[in-house]
Amino acid sequence: MAHPPHPVRLTDLLTRIDGHWSPKIAAEANGWHLKLVKVLGEFVWHAHDHVDEVFWILAGELTIHLDGRPDVHLHEGEVFVVPAGVRHLPYAEHECHLALLEPAGVPNTGDAGGTRTAADVWL
Amino acid sequence: MAHPPHPVRLTDLLTRIDGHWSPKIAAEANGWHLKLVKVLGEFVWHAHDHVDEVFWILAGELTIHLDGRPDVHLHEGEVFVVPAGVRHLPYAEHECHLALLEPAGVPNTGDAGGTRTAADVWL
Repeated sequence: MAHPPHPVRLTDLLTRIDGHWSPKIAAEANGWHLKLVKVLGEFVWHAHDHVDEVFWILAGELTIHLDGRPDVHLHEGEVFVVPAGVRHLPYAEHECHLALLEPAGVPNTGDAGGTRTAADVWL
Repeated sequence: MAHPPHPVRLTDLLTRIDGHWSPKIAAEANGWHLKLVKVLGEFVWHAHDHVDEVFWILAGELTIHLDGRPDVHLHEGEVFVVPAGVRHLPYAEHECHLALLEPAGVPNTGDAGGTRTAADVWL
């Protein structure tokens, strides 16, 4: 499904997001979701066993701690792909806005689950 | 394959692109490519029969003429999904920089083919 049938302005969609660490869907193409999320502080260690996860920083800075690899520090306009199966912990000292690209239906908490798992909600 | 193993800064990658209408690969995840391209003027009418194509404007403005539907006008920070099978003609009055998200191996000219078909080249 290709959705929505009109252009979306990402900064406008971001104004509809209140909390942190709860990605919401901005667009769908080929069974993938483009999600937007605001983050602050530390998330939870998790991995997505069979899914690469694309982080695209829209505003602010993000650190991703990676199990067994050096940390990655990301700034606005930078993109990083967390490979499938690599345990990671995103962290933002100040509020950071980012886009995630991943197959539809992938839970934000990966194999960790728990109360911070976000439902699939469209912006 | 998740690639590359390090962050990429999109504006830096764009400086490596000379011509127009020849998308180059910036990242790969889950068999999809994130491509960058500079465009100016008119491309060719084409469709991708089974593939939705995501246009994400990084700088400038882009018009997409769509067969049987109203034109879409896109500005920096806006995203639009051209649904599979919809014939389209992108046009930029001034140089425009954009990202494309689509499955690996999709030709830029779709079913039109011809001399403006770009090879799969990494930035």
